[in-house]
Amino acid sequence: MTTKRFHDDDSAVDDFYAEVATADLQPLWTQEGLLTKTPARLRPHLWRWKTLRGLAERSGELIGIDRGGDRRVLSLSHPDLCGLPFATHTLWGAVQYLRPGELAPAHRHSPAALRFVLEGSGVWTLVNGDPLHMAPGDLVLTPSYTWHEHHNPGTEPMIWFDGLDLPLVRNLDAVFFEPGSDTLTEYEPRLRSRSEDHFAAPGLVPVGAEAVAVQDPASGRFSRLLAYRWSDVDAALDRLLGSTGGAQATIRYADPVTGADVMPTLRAEIHRVLAGHRTKPVRRVGSGIWVVHRGSGASVVGGTRYSWSAGDMFVAPSWATVSHEADADADLFLLSDEPVLEAIGLARTEGAGRADGAPDDN
Amino acid sequence: MTTKRFHDDDSAVDDFYAEVATADLQPLWTQEGLLTKTPARLRPHLWRWKTLRGLAERSGELIGIDRGGDRRVLSLSHPDLCGLPFATHTLWGAVQYLRPGELAPAHRHSPAALRFVLEGSGVWTLVNGDPLHMAPGDLVLTPSYTWHEHHNPGTEPMIWFDGLDLPLVRNLDAVFFEPGSDTLTEYEPRLRSRSEDHFAAPGLVPVGAEAVAVQDPASGRFSRLLAYRWSDVDAALDRLLGSTGGAQATIRYADPVTGADVMPTLRAEIHRVLAGHRTKPVRRVGSGIWVVHRGSGASVVGGTRYSWSAGDMFVAPSWATVSHEADADADLFLLSDEPVLEAIGLARTEGAGRADGAPDDN
Amino acid sequence: MTTKRFHDDDSAVDDFYAEVATADLQPLWTQEGLLTKTPARLRPHLWRWKTLRGLAERSGELIGIDRGGDRRVLSLSHPDLCGLPFATHTLWGAVQYLRPGELAPAHRHSPAALRFVLEGSGVWTLVNGDPLHMAPGDLVLTPSYTWHEHHNPGTEPMIWFDGLDLPLVRNLDAVFFEPGSDTLTEYEPRLRSRSEDHFAAPGLVPVGAEAVAVQDPASGRFSRLLAYRWSDVDAALDRLLGSTGGAQATIRYADPVTGADVMPTLRAEIHRVLAGHRTKPVRRVGSGIWVVHRGSGASVVGGTRYSWSAGDMFVAPSWATVSHEADADADLFLLSDEPVLEAIGLARTEGAGRADGAPDDN
Amino acid sequence: MTTKRFHDDDSAVDDFYAEVATADLQPLWTQEGLLTKTPARLRPHLWRWKTLRGLAERSGELIGIDRGGDRRVLSLSHPDLCGLPFATHTLWGAVQYLRPGELAPAHRHSPAALRFVLEGSGVWTLVNGDPLHMAPGDLVLTPSYTWHEHHNPGTEPMIWFDGLDLPLVRNLDAVFFEPGSDTLTEYEPRLRSRSEDHFAAPGLVPVGAEAVAVQDPASGRFSRLLAYRWSDVDAALDRLLGSTGGAQATIRYADPVTGADVMPTLRAEIHRVLAGHRTKPVRRVGSGIWVVHRGSGASVVGGTRYSWSAGDMFVAPSWATVSHEADADADLFLLSDEPVLEAIGLARTEGAGRADGAPDDN
Repeated sequence: MTTKRFHDDDSAVDDFYAEVATADLQPLWTQEGLLTKTPARLRPHLWRWKTLRGLAERSGELIGIDRGGDRRVLSLSHPDLCGLPFATHTLWGAVQYLRPGELAPAHRHSPAALRFVLEGSGVWTLVNGDPLHMAPGDLVLTPSYTWHEHHNPGTEPMIWFDGLDLPLVRNLDAVFFEPGSDTLTEYEPRLRSRSEDHFAAPGLVPVGAEAVAVQDPASGRFSRLLAYRWSDVDAALDRLLGSTGGAQATIRYADPVTGADVMPTLRAEIHRVLAGHRTKPVRRVGSGIWVVHRGSGASVVGGTRYSWSAGDMFVAPSWATVSHEADADADLFLLSDEPVLEAIGLARTEGAGRADGAPDDN
Repeated sequence: MTTKRFHDDDSAVDDFYAEVATADLQPLWTQEGLLTKTPARLRPHLWRWKTLRGLAERSGELIGIDRGGDRRVLSLSHPDLCGLPFATHTLWGAVQYLRPGELAPAHRHSPAALRFVLEGSGVWTLVNGDPLHMAPGDLVLTPSYTWHEHHNPGTEPMIWFDGLDLPLVRNLDAVFFEPGSDTLTEYEPRLRSRSEDHFAAPGLVPVGAEAVAVQDPASGRFSRLLAYRWSDVDAALDRLLGSTGGAQATIRYADPVTGADVMPTLRAEIHRVLAGHRTKPVRRVGSGIWVVHRGSGASVVGGTRYSWSAGDMFVAPSWATVSHEADADADLFLLSDEPVLEAIGLARTEGAGRADGAPDDN
Repeated sequence: MTTKRFHDDDSAVDDFYAEVATADLQPLWTQEGLLTKTPARLRPHLWRWKTLRGLAERSGELIGIDRGGDRRVLSLSHPDLCGLPFATHTLWGAVQYLRPGELAPAHRHSPAALRFVLEGSGVWTLVNGDPLHMAPGDLVLTPSYTWHEHHNPGTEPMIWFDGLDLPLVRNLDAVFFEPGSDTLTEYEPRLRSRSEDHFAAPGLVPVGAEAVAVQDPASGRFSRLLAYRWSDVDAALDRLLGSTGGAQATIRYADPVTGADVMPTLRAEIHRVLAGHRTKPVRRVGSGIWVVHRGSGASVVGGTRYSWSAGDMFVAPSWATVSHEADADADLFLLSDEPVLEAIGLARTEGAGRADGAPDDN
Repeated sequence: MTTKRFHDDDSAVDDFYAEVATADLQPLWTQEGLLTKTPARLRPHLWRWKTLRGLAERSGELIGIDRGGDRRVLSLSHPDLCGLPFATHTLWGAVQYLRPGELAPAHRHSPAALRFVLEGSGVWTLVNGDPLHMAPGDLVLTPSYTWHEHHNPGTEPMIWFDGLDLPLVRNLDAVFFEPGSDTLTEYEPRLRSRSEDHFAAPGLVPVGAEAVAVQDPASGRFSRLLAYRWSDVDAALDRLLGSTGGAQATIRYADPVTGADVMPTLRAEIHRVLAGHRTKPVRRVGSGIWVVHRGSGASVVGGTRYSWSAGDMFVAPSWATVSHEADADADLFLLSDEPVLEAIGLARTEGAGRADGAPDDN
């Protein structure tokens, strides 16, 4: 086997480089760009809702749900990632489209997924048998190695944002996949899941065996609460703004028992910015996908301005400064890999502090 | 100085014992009961609501609020504790009575307190300036070293259960006390506190500076949520029972951000037992005070049967087996010192497991 | 049953007090000294080595090892603790004396013990079967609920300091005791224990099953290293002083795998103060027993000056300021309950900071 | 911008694919190999010491130290990694060569490095100013964002193994690099570093300011002990084998204060296998580089047998079973990314248990 070979004008050195390559070695001193001054792998990028929605609908007309893994998904493919179907180097972002009457049978995998619902009604995702109802603005989790299947018994199509840690898990060579039974799970189509029956009460933790009933012991760590309802999130943002008197508020989706992120690899947040307000620039190590849920405005990301309205999605690269400005009251959903960087000592932030939530000076 | 002196028939030993005592020493071999086979300091004890309520009302008629520390409190004084005003060796339990129009000005102390409201309406407790409305069944915290004052601007008296870690903190020689200003704090009498505005949304954690605004940095660790509403607790118990199909359910009051107990020294739980159900006997190291919130039934504690109805309170000593039986659907509030024993490696339990909450066999 | 009864000049109130007492209640407003401004239970107290050693020797002559629990122990009995055989409200301190040829058979108990050897040679303490050799200056642990027995196969008596959390564990009503077999355990009298074979290498942690072999799974949490050799401690203090260039150094005895204190309830430290140096005053919540291992000097504790030399022992009460001054290079062993206060959020310190170890200004 | 475009026989679908690509999207159902059944990115690979040493020496003759970053390094370049200079997808492995009199000035970077010395003498690495002497078998750390420079004031060249988390940190887009001053740091060439003066005593933790003096507050978390001496490691392995009576022993290098891995991203272990012993097959998620320090034998990795002797290095891919067999008593140093997988919930192991260290059945 042989790796990349370097060349030199000095023939002794050139010969040496040939031997080095033959030995599957490389000289450090010939490498360029190995140690950059600051993170520099990606540029920002934005996808328009109009395009995403149009192509998702067309995929529904053209492509059967049973084709290719029983999931009708268009993935954000960042142009800086060499044709890989990834939104960032660690995050998968996509739109998934499920037509009325369609069913996506169960499978499970080590990459963790979450769904932020964009449009539609009447869909249930089953996670280890627990039926999670889905409506616009809801966040629904299908954590690492949980069985999950999607059912649309309704009369409308549904389109949702899929966020996964797949690029990260693949980079770590930790992908496991297992197809499930072709037989669909019977379920009672309640609006409230078992997970919510047990864990959606504020500061009230069930004691005893049922506390862990929803979790499969073979699964990893993840939030005991599997569905976060938009009505709860909306009310919480209102109360927070009412209490602080500020023009912006941020809420992190968390395990109600430990406060940990929804998954060990993924952070989910919602950012509300009131019309006319501009947030202070913040930059962090790690990448994020922003999904506009409501309102309109613009963000300056790494020096470039991107205007947006509901349904648009954009990538904030590692260490790029991000600042939002709302024309109409806006809610932005953020998926990021920050828990990974925190867990292994690589997190860094500049410009946060009072930026998130507290009354701003301007 | 001289400590206890022991005696012996052998005059050489007796002389030796005299010298030992003079030197402020004691021989180990003369000690009895120093190392018991199992915990054995207290017997169970029950106080009747009829008595507690009657005497509390009379105290309201006889004693001004300004007498003795501005708190009109009758403390449970366990007969095995040598006249100390303590319910157990680690826990203070009491009833506090506040008449219409009465005001109890601010102070703070290292012992932590919580209030479980028994009867009345229209009272606010201010904790570091945050006004917490109080209604029957609510749990309200006044954590270690937080300023707190009680206001009854209403037309009814209120009576609540006071639980503190005072005996423990005193045993550890860690009591600090500071009187506050005589001037009462102005407040807006809202039904929802700032603490609830920020932290009462399930699995939704505010990000940024306001997340810690309610806590005084000088204070210790305690729950960010300072009030737990009975309506939330009642609904959570219903859903838990609905989901498990069991005849009993237990919920622990917790910090919504970390899942930690309400205070590092105190655990608060609510136990619902449906009529006709008997819970499995459980015993634990550490003591507890049970307060009957609703229903009627009986408990067997350390072999003795105590029948109870709403408002009764009883002590479960360390290592005594406890089993409840409900005649009518019952809710029992439990205050215990278990977090202390867990934190320092002395916790032990027998008979728990499926006992708390999951469907029972009988 | 009836508890303490209070009296009042007003006969209505006096009658009320009678009823309150009959109901096993007490009025809060009659209590005095319940909430002190700062901790105030104990005064400092000192015991002289000359006395301790003399009485320990006489106990060896007068009292058989088999009398009273097979342990020949004289406990420090603080004159402020009403005749209890306790050095402080949380700590047991004592001198134990074992004559040549004597054997103390096995037992175990939930209170944890440690031994700091004062004088003698040739003794082994077996902890869950692991033989720990004992020599002057060594610290040897017999953690909570570990079987332990003492053997003196040598030709000299040994006297050591016993430190236990017994007063604390008793206050928490968490005492369990179990006598062991009368048959003594066979052992190989090596100078190095299994615990040291596994855990006495700096920063090197064994992987796999043997890593926990010394611990009994039924036992609580405690240091995997059961013996700390004076030669190691002495060398570590020398290097630390050499590196910082200071006149004092403090080392905490810790679990080599987690850095936790030797027991969840007990902290052990050694303080070296060079001749002519005076340490800055420090005060902490929690009590301590200081044992002078080497040197001479004086300490100011809570305003009172106590001069000392090797073997003397003194108590520092909660919140009393402590400052040491050495006439000759001195090593002071400290046993404290600080981990308990830290674990439950009651720790406080004033005046530490650079006081411990770093080069001092004076 | 446009990403990868897929094709289809159906012209409507083909047109759709064109639009999808133009929109920087990709259909999920056209992806292959995205979700593998188990990890499958790499094959095992071995590099021979004879080759490594020979080329390192020649690099010393041909290439000045000042060329390309002042580090004379040949990196292991895995043939399955498309010409990248990386040993695995997360780990950098290399040999570094420093001639007598050579000096490599300071720089710092977010990727963390460690050095395992293979041959030579008389070299110091300065980490944040603390001079760490290097000798064969020593492990020396240069953690994330610490200034480090290498000095060879001696008369022999030195060759060491470099292990870094660079591929991981690069994949996470978290690389920061800062060149240091051209002026070399003055130092006292002691055999013992300040880090060892403070932290190399077993279970003895310095208290106070000097405890963190060696760490730069801007740096991340890493072991307080920066050098692990071969003599200590060798003795610890001997004692462990003596105590367990087994034929293999494993020791993990750890922070002596917390037990954490040497870096949050890197685990270092040493495995001793006695002649004639074969270890049980174990497989784990995550990759490792094995460096043979002493002895000879063979390993079966993912079904392929690799024989080895001192200085050889080989890669164990994620989820490949690994078993070693020693012809002569062997010590294998292992560098792995397992802490990363543990920290984010992706760790999995099969076949460990008693495999590491305890007496084996065969």
